[in-house]
Amino acid sequence: MKKFINRVDDYLAESLAGFAAAHADLVTLNVDPVYIMRKSLKPGKVAVISGGGSGHEPLHGGFVGYGMLDAACPGQVFTSPTPDQMMAAAQAADTGAGVLFIVKNYSGDLMNFEMASELCEMPNATVLVNDDVAVENSSFTTGRRGVAGTAIVEKLVGSFAESGADLEACRAFGERVAGRIASMGVAFSSCTVPAAGRPTFTLGADEIEIGVGIHGEPGRRRAKFETANAIADELLTAIVQDLKPAADAPLLVLVNGLGGTPLSELYLLYNAARTWIDGRGLNVARSQVGALTTSLEMAGASITLCTLDDEMTRHWDSPVHTAGLRWGM
Amino acid sequence: MKKFINRVDDYLAESLAGFAAAHADLVTLNVDPVYIMRKSLKPGKVAVISGGGSGHEPLHGGFVGYGMLDAACPGQVFTSPTPDQMMAAAQAADTGAGVLFIVKNYSGDLMNFEMASELCEMPNATVLVNDDVAVENSSFTTGRRGVAGTAIVEKLVGSFAESGADLEACRAFGERVAGRIASMGVAFSSCTVPAAGRPTFTLGADEIEIGVGIHGEPGRRRAKFETANAIADELLTAIVQDLKPAADAPLLVLVNGLGGTPLSELYLLYNAARTWIDGRGLNVARSQVGALTTSLEMAGASITLCTLDDEMTRHWDSPVHTAGLRWGM
Repeated sequence: MKKFINRVDDYLAESLAGFAAAHADLVTLNVDPVYIMRKSLKPGKVAVISGGGSGHEPLHGGFVGYGMLDAACPGQVFTSPTPDQMMAAAQAADTGAGVLFIVKNYSGDLMNFEMASELCEMPNATVLVNDDVAVENSSFTTGRRGVAGTAIVEKLVGSFAESGADLEACRAFGERVAGRIASMGVAFSSCTVPAAGRPTFTLGADEIEIGVGIHGEPGRRRAKFETANAIADELLTAIVQDLKPAADAPLLVLVNGLGGTPLSELYLLYNAARTWIDGRGLNVARSQVGALTTSLEMAGASITLCTLDDEMTRHWDSPVHTAGLRWGM
Repeated sequence: MKKFINRVDDYLAESLAGFAAAHADLVTLNVDPVYIMRKSLKPGKVAVISGGGSGHEPLHGGFVGYGMLDAACPGQVFTSPTPDQMMAAAQAADTGAGVLFIVKNYSGDLMNFEMASELCEMPNATVLVNDDVAVENSSFTTGRRGVAGTAIVEKLVGSFAESGADLEACRAFGERVAGRIASMGVAFSSCTVPAAGRPTFTLGADEIEIGVGIHGEPGRRRAKFETANAIADELLTAIVQDLKPAADAPLLVLVNGLGGTPLSELYLLYNAARTWIDGRGLNVARSQVGALTTSLEMAGASITLCTLDDEMTRHWDSPVHTAGLRWGM
């Protein structure tokens, strides 16, 4: 296991310390319990909070800041954060308008966020993200997994909350957004969880995992290595079958790197996806290419489509200032 | 070789097509000869142009846009672009104030940019970047290699040119900036050039290459795997020995990913670097963590220090709007 690491037990704490030091203008880090807070809160705004196992950076801590999240609760690598982290973050982030939790659909996250939601004394609500169309039920999930579409939900709901919407409106908007997103990924390699010290799964030299989860969960099939065009075709066919976008629906296209794949390949995959989408008369309105939701150093990528409407497009374009996404300010 | 790829011969063209399609608001792509142009030029501004072998994305094409480059010339992977690319880009980008070429110190790049400079009819000048303190002379270089510090030169000189400085002032400023930057990297794995089809070099399961070049050139030594703290110590010792920053000099610290290393490890390395720097009473003024100058999917990272002054700090903080760096707009 070759990583930038000192001791396995310190991996998360040191990575978070580095993150907080590099972005001291944006965030503060609470150490016990662990959560990342937006440096300046906006009184009366609904607090938007997410969290989950670490190893998916920049998700979620990298999205704390103006126009996205108010706090993020990082668990150990690929392990849910605990209810006490979520409750402490909610307590710290609430300025009177209540708290919206954005939760990826994994059993551990769901259970712990539900417990936090029940124990929190302020008004709160939850939006569940389950955009992965690859499989129903999985190693850690009942139903569909939440993957790279989560970054889109956090951007749109974060902007919506920033605009002054109340808790119920934020929840309803978040649910609408989450219902209009579909994703699927492919792995070229496994990743190695520091505490495990060896790869989560193994792939032969010419094998890929189509529909892989962001913790290395099995996908739809183990395939022989294929061209980028063939991969884009398989992912997009599954995504479009699920999402059923109208021909004139403005699409947000996200090509997301899983951690070990460089930008030049992601742009090549975007080109393949774009050619596929354009060839079917569908309408690309916005594009994002980069590693937003990763699986440590896994080589691979996912494609996400989101059917925008005017309101969602406005909230995608609106200013955001986080470590992981920044524009308009 | 598992990559997002269709045919080896189309790798660059398809990756560039995807880049241009994803960032059609920022750039246009000229196909023959190949160069990336800023979508809207500013009349009377010095045109800032860079280029080099591909495989280092977002460098250079990802830095075309407001506040950085006016054009970039991508060569084949790890291969210099040709003088005709540079001349065509210069012709297209010049709006009457002349052209400044920013060139990484590799023999092929230097020779081709020199030829372009001689053949170009408009006034032009060159800034050479050679920030890699690891070794003198190397596989493709006489003197020191130009590595991740190039992104800093492009940001600062781009901003300086944007402010209306003339060609000679831009050249002098660029030279001053380039003289205040030192970098060194480490590889945990090789990368595979598509046209070669196999790794450029091989590392044992517990080996790392200290001082590696961004094309996989040998560094100072092949070492046994070490902790992040030990690696940060070795890189920073070499960098500080070269740069000799005054205790109160405001430092820009860049922790740059080489392509295959995820953000969580880069932040951990930043934490190690930050602890080292703070412990020596040096003064961190600005920080940047991310993959700005990559070596395809190579696992590893580099550290860069730049001693800022007030003018340079202002140009670092100024608005920039490119695919790879964006803030203030």
